[in-house]
Amino acid sequence: MIDTTIIEARNATHAAELTRDYDTLGEKLSRKGVDIDAIKDRAKGFSVAVPSWGTGTGGTRFARFPGEGEPRDIFDKLDDCGVIHKLTGAAGSVSLHIPWDKADPADLLAKAEEHGLSFDAMNSNTFQDQPDQAQSYKFGSLSHVDAATRAQAVEHNLECIEIGESLGSKALTVWIGDGANFPGQTHMGRQFERYLSSMKDIYKGLPEDWSIFSEHKIYEPAFYSTVVQDWGSSLLTAQELGDKAKCLVDLGHHAPNVNIEMIVSRLIHAGKLGGFHFNDSKYGDDDLDSGTIEPYRLFLVWNELVDAEGTPGLDLSHMIDQSHNVTDPIESLMISAVEIQRAYVQASLVDRAALAAYQQENDALMASATLRAAFRTDVEPILQMARFEAGAAIDPVMTYRASGYRAKVASERPKVSGAGGGIV
Amino acid sequence: MIDTTIIEARNATHAAELTRDYDTLGEKLSRKGVDIDAIKDRAKGFSVAVPSWGTGTGGTRFARFPGEGEPRDIFDKLDDCGVIHKLTGAAGSVSLHIPWDKADPADLLAKAEEHGLSFDAMNSNTFQDQPDQAQSYKFGSLSHVDAATRAQAVEHNLECIEIGESLGSKALTVWIGDGANFPGQTHMGRQFERYLSSMKDIYKGLPEDWSIFSEHKIYEPAFYSTVVQDWGSSLLTAQELGDKAKCLVDLGHHAPNVNIEMIVSRLIHAGKLGGFHFNDSKYGDDDLDSGTIEPYRLFLVWNELVDAEGTPGLDLSHMIDQSHNVTDPIESLMISAVEIQRAYVQASLVDRAALAAYQQENDALMASATLRAAFRTDVEPILQMARFEAGAAIDPVMTYRASGYRAKVASERPKVSGAGGGIV
Amino acid sequence: MIDTTIIEARNATHAAELTRDYDTLGEKLSRKGVDIDAIKDRAKGFSVAVPSWGTGTGGTRFARFPGEGEPRDIFDKLDDCGVIHKLTGAAGSVSLHIPWDKADPADLLAKAEEHGLSFDAMNSNTFQDQPDQAQSYKFGSLSHVDAATRAQAVEHNLECIEIGESLGSKALTVWIGDGANFPGQTHMGRQFERYLSSMKDIYKGLPEDWSIFSEHKIYEPAFYSTVVQDWGSSLLTAQELGDKAKCLVDLGHHAPNVNIEMIVSRLIHAGKLGGFHFNDSKYGDDDLDSGTIEPYRLFLVWNELVDAEGTPGLDLSHMIDQSHNVTDPIESLMISAVEIQRAYVQASLVDRAALAAYQQENDALMASATLRAAFRTDVEPILQMARFEAGAAIDPVMTYRASGYRAKVASERPKVSGAGGGIV
Amino acid sequence: MIDTTIIEARNATHAAELTRDYDTLGEKLSRKGVDIDAIKDRAKGFSVAVPSWGTGTGGTRFARFPGEGEPRDIFDKLDDCGVIHKLTGAAGSVSLHIPWDKADPADLLAKAEEHGLSFDAMNSNTFQDQPDQAQSYKFGSLSHVDAATRAQAVEHNLECIEIGESLGSKALTVWIGDGANFPGQTHMGRQFERYLSSMKDIYKGLPEDWSIFSEHKIYEPAFYSTVVQDWGSSLLTAQELGDKAKCLVDLGHHAPNVNIEMIVSRLIHAGKLGGFHFNDSKYGDDDLDSGTIEPYRLFLVWNELVDAEGTPGLDLSHMIDQSHNVTDPIESLMISAVEIQRAYVQASLVDRAALAAYQQENDALMASATLRAAFRTDVEPILQMARFEAGAAIDPVMTYRASGYRAKVASERPKVSGAGGGIV
Repeated sequence: MIDTTIIEARNATHAAELTRDYDTLGEKLSRKGVDIDAIKDRAKGFSVAVPSWGTGTGGTRFARFPGEGEPRDIFDKLDDCGVIHKLTGAAGSVSLHIPWDKADPADLLAKAEEHGLSFDAMNSNTFQDQPDQAQSYKFGSLSHVDAATRAQAVEHNLECIEIGESLGSKALTVWIGDGANFPGQTHMGRQFERYLSSMKDIYKGLPEDWSIFSEHKIYEPAFYSTVVQDWGSSLLTAQELGDKAKCLVDLGHHAPNVNIEMIVSRLIHAGKLGGFHFNDSKYGDDDLDSGTIEPYRLFLVWNELVDAEGTPGLDLSHMIDQSHNVTDPIESLMISAVEIQRAYVQASLVDRAALAAYQQENDALMASATLRAAFRTDVEPILQMARFEAGAAIDPVMTYRASGYRAKVASERPKVSGAGGGIV
Repeated sequence: MIDTTIIEARNATHAAELTRDYDTLGEKLSRKGVDIDAIKDRAKGFSVAVPSWGTGTGGTRFARFPGEGEPRDIFDKLDDCGVIHKLTGAAGSVSLHIPWDKADPADLLAKAEEHGLSFDAMNSNTFQDQPDQAQSYKFGSLSHVDAATRAQAVEHNLECIEIGESLGSKALTVWIGDGANFPGQTHMGRQFERYLSSMKDIYKGLPEDWSIFSEHKIYEPAFYSTVVQDWGSSLLTAQELGDKAKCLVDLGHHAPNVNIEMIVSRLIHAGKLGGFHFNDSKYGDDDLDSGTIEPYRLFLVWNELVDAEGTPGLDLSHMIDQSHNVTDPIESLMISAVEIQRAYVQASLVDRAALAAYQQENDALMASATLRAAFRTDVEPILQMARFEAGAAIDPVMTYRASGYRAKVASERPKVSGAGGGIV
Repeated sequence: MIDTTIIEARNATHAAELTRDYDTLGEKLSRKGVDIDAIKDRAKGFSVAVPSWGTGTGGTRFARFPGEGEPRDIFDKLDDCGVIHKLTGAAGSVSLHIPWDKADPADLLAKAEEHGLSFDAMNSNTFQDQPDQAQSYKFGSLSHVDAATRAQAVEHNLECIEIGESLGSKALTVWIGDGANFPGQTHMGRQFERYLSSMKDIYKGLPEDWSIFSEHKIYEPAFYSTVVQDWGSSLLTAQELGDKAKCLVDLGHHAPNVNIEMIVSRLIHAGKLGGFHFNDSKYGDDDLDSGTIEPYRLFLVWNELVDAEGTPGLDLSHMIDQSHNVTDPIESLMISAVEIQRAYVQASLVDRAALAAYQQENDALMASATLRAAFRTDVEPILQMARFEAGAAIDPVMTYRASGYRAKVASERPKVSGAGGGIV
Repeated sequence: MIDTTIIEARNATHAAELTRDYDTLGEKLSRKGVDIDAIKDRAKGFSVAVPSWGTGTGGTRFARFPGEGEPRDIFDKLDDCGVIHKLTGAAGSVSLHIPWDKADPADLLAKAEEHGLSFDAMNSNTFQDQPDQAQSYKFGSLSHVDAATRAQAVEHNLECIEIGESLGSKALTVWIGDGANFPGQTHMGRQFERYLSSMKDIYKGLPEDWSIFSEHKIYEPAFYSTVVQDWGSSLLTAQELGDKAKCLVDLGHHAPNVNIEMIVSRLIHAGKLGGFHFNDSKYGDDDLDSGTIEPYRLFLVWNELVDAEGTPGLDLSHMIDQSHNVTDPIESLMISAVEIQRAYVQASLVDRAALAAYQQENDALMASATLRAAFRTDVEPILQMARFEAGAAIDPVMTYRASGYRAKVASERPKVSGAGGGIV
């Protein structure tokens, strides 16, 4: 969709400066014993999954303000994902959401292949009612008091697995909105037991080489209690299900002030860390662009992950999960993929031998300075070179804007009018 | 809409017990020098405004699950408000939201009169785009960088005043979602200046006997910064506008842990407290039913208000502002009106002379115990007697259920299907 | 220490009114099928442990403002605890803190017997350095990088067990301040492993009929990360140790907004709830008097506990853990014991059959109302009657003040001058 | 105290690399039209005040773990401050705390001159009781119910001004711990009025060319309410006092999630921003080292300040206010001064013309990217060159360690033993 010549033309204007900056940084890193090419190769090997639904403009319960060229269906979304990957080289897979993305698997595979994309974790949806649905999820899904509703929700998850199998996916992410808006509305203990029972039914249908991810969230859409409210409940779930069950951490799903990188560390300890939903936030589950609010927090999460590389059984799934309300979603997803990659590269620069020594000596000041030294390294040339060598864009956003892609799809995809959110 | 005979029949089954409980409580209070009838008369004089939109089932950005008999328009909503007031005797006014509630003023007045309702503060809406709107509010309204958009938003507010004048309203509440989702998206200082400039334009159109309420909110729908993010910015706004400008406090619009009753106290000190939006919350702007999460906090707010009675210039507007996602909105609004009234009555029982003496002696333990003694008084018989004497229902919810009102309107109002929120 | 005649004299002035109020409430409860005497007997059977150190005036890092008659040692503290129990009848055990309370076991047992007190869970202290200590805990204790420091901390805990055995205690509570003030200061994974290893060493020394409680806390004294930061880490600890290891929940040790009653429910599900530290808080680990900030939250916690009565293996330890900075500690502890007892009694009034039915029907409004109906019941006459019948004071605070106890001990215990906290 | 030859020797080992890195960065910045020397000169002109008390090891209410060579008095502290300034060139003034730092003004001036230091804002202390004090601050100081206590606190502040005048200080910072631990303990409105009345008495004694800073804090040491709890109350205070009264923002004194840079912007709008207390925090008023937890937040604050340069009447006071519990305080203060300077320099690199244009176009993505581009610039060579040219150390920490200063003072200053904090 983005002509390679456009990328090449834009890259040509940056190449000389990039080479100079890359060499300069390389020299500087080499003084510390770091081989910039090795780091760049790590960057090239990095990929994060894009959520299909992230390509459309998001909204709040108050309103949604669509942009131009909103994707009409999963095929439009895959086209948009193709652009993201082509320009960044760092987003080679897509995570589907069922039923929003239901389509003929052969068509999906063909479209994905066209863009060099694969399919990451499948996402089920039991937080909304679909038009043809027998039972309503108003009062819950997998944890509903009514067995028929639970069965319907289980069945839907099994269908997601089935679709995923046909697409080469290897994981199912289960996030439910079940909970309560009032003290007393549910019996919290029995509700959790019903949830676990349903999850076990799903687990029985999980192929041997699949994982199931339990995703916690402190609140929203339930505002008093949520069945899987934190990593503790998520851990209990994964423990009771079995080895194929892991916990997924969404960076925006925690109580204020919580130390997320420590949760990462604890789940690694427990052998139950499965993956991430990347985004950024200031207040609640704001779903803002990754790395735009607290970039150091993102770095600290990656610091744990890079540190844990090589841990037996640790095989993480990385996905972006954001809502793009005021930007072009393609631009936000490109920048987010790059910011996540940036934190990964910065974390790869941490002098771990020095850090371990400072920790052993309780030299808190220098240990902390060691992390900051890696974080403040401007790795932009590494990221740019990784893209350049991969045939992606040195400057993804400007190349995208130069390509006229948005205007083109705007002419093909009908205009969507603004709409209120859930409050009206 | 609710036949008086139904109320009377239900009340008859409770009257004997009520009399006994009321007398017993009266005797107990009299020992402390409190005249129960005086307190009951305060309860009878209490009224809180109902938000017209609160009569419909609310939702989140994830989904909305409508109930049966959803109101189709403002006339249905006024019918529902009529039920609420008839059964509680504590909700005699309605707060309209423009443009959702636009209709012929004469028809609105006739319908209100039918139910014995009046019109409270008007609410403008510049956080959503309307179908026929020239300028979009995607990037702000009263604080937008574009003058034409600001002018449109000002014009809308002036129209709200105009409509309100025809309905006997005396106040305009301005809440805007303007802000930013990214650091740098807006220049926070200039954005605030644009907001103030627009507010001054609205203020110029405010009738002499009207008030304009500035309502703050820490976040949502903007997730990095909000123009009127807290009471400090709201205070600056009211100060710069003039005497008719006051601050409105919504109980759910604060940062975690914030002492809301202290903000009430400070705004009273500054002569700028104008009114309340009542609801309850645990995490963010959860918009849960008043008094269901932290009833003591609601009491402490009322404790400040009752204490400040008689302060020159203090004339507060009280409104419910909630989202009813899992209950019958009429039931939630009735119970909420009662819970707000309950806190008001409990706060009226505080022994203020004793409290002042303990405060003077730094007897923190007994001062605190004095508040709790009032709070733990079970004033249910007072509330019930106030309703009984006013011809309302001793037990509003059960009487409502017995009336069959919901089933009746469900047969008249078309079924609404579930829908996703802003995220799809 | 408090002469029984004083209690009897004060009670005599209240007895007639109490009888009337008790009977009236009894009649009212009987209409709902509740036997007030059965509830009162539950109240009489209730007891919460008092922390020995709570009898002294607490402070902050900024300052401590001692009162008159500060206890000089554990024997003075036990005298104060004796007063608390004598006047409330609800605080029959004391929780000791080692090394602060080290003394000859025989003397301790004799003093406790004098007051009718027993010894609850033992508390170890590895968050402070003692004068004679070989290794410093500045950089940690059970999780320290240095094996000798860890061994010293383990040894101290084993000594606490040994002391506890001589006193009839059956549990050890382990709370440590270990963590970090800087990202990078510690390797969070290895630090946790060292902690677990130390805990296993302690566990090996635990008598068969003892429990060990793991207590989590989000922050303070460590301000970036804490080894046992939440119930998830506490759960992992208890799971790895074995059946005698349980989790202890301190109400003030959570992130903002966290649903504590849900954590209670989850730990019950996991078979790992061991006990509580009661207090109240608005911001952090404020250690305010129980039930004075959010009484409904305390009720909701008790609602879970009462609901879970009869769960096999559930045998909870209840202790107050507060800091009394501006009140007479004896008064605060008496009132706190009563407020905890009050919430327990209120929770005992929940109509659980009705609640379960509403939950089954997804009648959120009535389910929630069912809890509130129990909470708003003014159970004061039940608490008073329970005390009266037990020979304690109907009005503990006024009886205490009438007794002149504080003035008496002030004359015997030397005056303590004010002092700065940790910041100077 | 640090021999210049040591600095020169250490610098000599870094000079060649520094020159290369500085030139390389200069070339890169020049491509964007930025003159690195101009930025470096800004860095050289930067200075932040050091709090005298920060040179001692801090603690919590649980414990304090002193290090070696703790300063015994203000003269030792000034020696330590001299080291900090000599090695960083960025900390040329000291902020005194009375009564901790009371001494003969002539001696203080002589000692300061010896180190090239001046005296920044004076800090009063009415949150602790001093041994010789007539009235206790247990229940408040400037807002106490008792007139004699308020008068004593006012008198103390006037004395601080008097001392400051003799030292060349031009500002008084007032922070009080007054508040309440219980709902009802104080009448919040009257308490505020008493506070304002006392502040007016202090204001009357303020020299014409002085400023008085009102500092807010949400909680601690008061745990239910605090008299000046947020910037709204601080603003009201400054407004009621007059032109010489401004608000001081401590980065750690806010509710969770609060947007601090927005408060900065609002206070600039109101003409009431007076200064800062820099530190970092994750949970409460953690008083951690500046820039170590959320460096981007520090940058965003500086972004507002640099943007507002040239605003008439804006003349800010910058001070570090931290507690160094696990590091050598001299090292922490040096690194903190550098991190604050770093954020200032990064903020100076923001392309404000481009930013303004993006803001005008609602190009949120590029506006946000513009800030991040400045933030991620590794300005280390600029900071190092600024120090190098000023005769300070290219690497302050390693130079300090090489100097043996700590060991030297440890041999002169008596060892301090560990102590419990306020809780014992």
